[in-house]
Amino acid sequence: MVSFTYYVPTKVFFGTDAESHIGSFLKSKGFHKVLLHYGSGSIKKNGLYDKVTAELQQAGIAYVELPGVEPNPKIGLVRCGVELCRKEGVDFLLGVGGGSVSDSCKAIALGLALDIDPWEAVVKNICPEKPFPMGLVLTIAAAGSEMSNSCVITDDEHNLKRGCNHDGNRPLVAFMNPENTLTVPKYQTAAGTVDIMMHTMERYLTADPETPLTDRLAEALLKTVKDCGSRLAEDPKDLQARTDLMWASSLAHNDITGCGRNRTFTAHKIEHDLSGVHDNITHGAGLAVVFPAWVLHEYKKGMKRFCQWAVNIWQANPNQDEDAVIREGVDHMKDYFRSLGMPVTMQELGVAPEEYDSIAELTIAGAGGAIPSYGSKLTKEEIIEIYRLAE
Amino acid sequence: MVSFTYYVPTKVFFGTDAESHIGSFLKSKGFHKVLLHYGSGSIKKNGLYDKVTAELQQAGIAYVELPGVEPNPKIGLVRCGVELCRKEGVDFLLGVGGGSVSDSCKAIALGLALDIDPWEAVVKNICPEKPFPMGLVLTIAAAGSEMSNSCVITDDEHNLKRGCNHDGNRPLVAFMNPENTLTVPKYQTAAGTVDIMMHTMERYLTADPETPLTDRLAEALLKTVKDCGSRLAEDPKDLQARTDLMWASSLAHNDITGCGRNRTFTAHKIEHDLSGVHDNITHGAGLAVVFPAWVLHEYKKGMKRFCQWAVNIWQANPNQDEDAVIREGVDHMKDYFRSLGMPVTMQELGVAPEEYDSIAELTIAGAGGAIPSYGSKLTKEEIIEIYRLAE
Repeated sequence: MVSFTYYVPTKVFFGTDAESHIGSFLKSKGFHKVLLHYGSGSIKKNGLYDKVTAELQQAGIAYVELPGVEPNPKIGLVRCGVELCRKEGVDFLLGVGGGSVSDSCKAIALGLALDIDPWEAVVKNICPEKPFPMGLVLTIAAAGSEMSNSCVITDDEHNLKRGCNHDGNRPLVAFMNPENTLTVPKYQTAAGTVDIMMHTMERYLTADPETPLTDRLAEALLKTVKDCGSRLAEDPKDLQARTDLMWASSLAHNDITGCGRNRTFTAHKIEHDLSGVHDNITHGAGLAVVFPAWVLHEYKKGMKRFCQWAVNIWQANPNQDEDAVIREGVDHMKDYFRSLGMPVTMQELGVAPEEYDSIAELTIAGAGGAIPSYGSKLTKEEIIEIYRLAE
Repeated sequence: MVSFTYYVPTKVFFGTDAESHIGSFLKSKGFHKVLLHYGSGSIKKNGLYDKVTAELQQAGIAYVELPGVEPNPKIGLVRCGVELCRKEGVDFLLGVGGGSVSDSCKAIALGLALDIDPWEAVVKNICPEKPFPMGLVLTIAAAGSEMSNSCVITDDEHNLKRGCNHDGNRPLVAFMNPENTLTVPKYQTAAGTVDIMMHTMERYLTADPETPLTDRLAEALLKTVKDCGSRLAEDPKDLQARTDLMWASSLAHNDITGCGRNRTFTAHKIEHDLSGVHDNITHGAGLAVVFPAWVLHEYKKGMKRFCQWAVNIWQANPNQDEDAVIREGVDHMKDYFRSLGMPVTMQELGVAPEEYDSIAELTIAGAGGAIPSYGSKLTKEEIIEIYRLAE
């Protein structure tokens, strides 16, 4: 096992009473003024906005609001947030939403803690010595941003989507009530399911020495997520499945499923520029297209590891040659994604071959050259090969 | 799933280079003077003492020493530690050892943070608002104290062993190098293996609603620990097994295997007074005796849950009546403990029937009455029935 550092300080309140801890927690930490950051306002329709603001009022905590976070959250709104917080003397950022809201909060926090333009903080991966405190009331199981060290932001003027990973991005607190995810639409639920699986599988498929405990924990999580995804495709109101999926979304990206493994997150990097250019592409849907193609492109570099993945996670028949085992695993995975209503080809995603060169160029430019992958790096031409394997 | 709070802020440096982070970490946090707390001095023989003190010296951090921690750590030494730290102006406690050293550190930290007698702090389960910072250089995979919220201390004058559980007991940092566990003797390795399994199984066997994700994570961990225990019984120098066992010891007791389940830790409570009275009983060995008997006493209260445990963890044949499934699970578990060289009867443990009444009385007195167990409480007479089931 390679050496690793594990540090996940986020305090999680999980359960159907999660929001009831908001006021007392923030008060106990001495916060006085909160930025309430959220999306399009669906939380006003389902009552969550009222619950959260009532909690703040009861605790005597003032708040200002910044709605309008979009999917693939934009640097423009982040900059507005930094300015608003400075003007209003905000001392805590409370996001109410999913990964986009969380990442937007994280980028505002970076701007406030570092006193530089937040885009620069993201692109240069600068970790503040003293993070600006933030937390999240989670409304969708997907990104796992509520416990992760990741923050991904889009510069829509320049069609760039960039992320940074460091412990300065770990939220102080997360309030997770699975009932708040009962109304997530089918497509978003499925895309979230894929995203959760991918956070685990991208940690699993790396060229590192053996990690039996980490592998088994990852397999346990993936088996559960797979079950939950299928159950929710049948019945979106299945609270048990919503509950497990929500907790899995956090564990999939808080690093517990990757201890002792170096992550490259290659499919994520490739996908980021697809959804950076095509704002209508949901991250999880983009991953459902890219990841199977990435496996097909890379598996010959580590047949034993990819076989383990195909057999233990996708129940491929191990009694055939390794090449066939892995290809069967990929087929099962694509069948599963299809069963959830996810796209598995570039055509379904709406990306045309004429765009391949320019999008791959963005990925290479963002990384400053070839991007790390399974045991070796991928050039622009190889990224395009992966697109083609997804046709 | 029942609501839960998850909070594990301990920063872990894991790997064969773990100690190399001691100096830089403590310096980055601004600590100036450390209490170096350890046991009988085996760390002076194996070179770890030299490594740790060199790290402190290179970082310019002063230290004072308090050796002498014994198994079942004693309140007397804890009180000495509190006094020494006050006198010397210590601002960080660094334990070098296993669960006993860690718990002794935790109790000193309680005394310093709360400014009351540490025994009172433990018995009354008082959580300080601002914990006194402590950390551990771990030398044995067993107690999981390095990430847990538990602290167990013995008052040897009155034959009492008492514990407290709250987030004020979570260490700030843990340095875990599996190579430091390569010399742990066979019996201690086996007792540690049992302790790790028990931290997971006591969370698993509770009368709570279903938790499929938590269950699968627990099963994944137990399968790994079982493998590691067997491998180390064969070859104590198996570094892969030492590595997985060490990380498993932390995960088994940091709460990740119990999310959504209320723990009662009944077998732990019963065992504490056996080893409180008989100082020569190793905690894990005591558990190997008590836990199978506890299962036999309790399983009729939750046949479905105990069946799941017997089948998923101990590979009992599910195609028989539930009673037989569970009894087969218990038999497999006892066979496994025996294969590690652990005792499974009160006789092997050296506890005589004449002592039953007085020891059970201690347990009841410590809890202030009947003790919580699977869905209902156990009286003194029932605790004695459990002893008899272990004969």
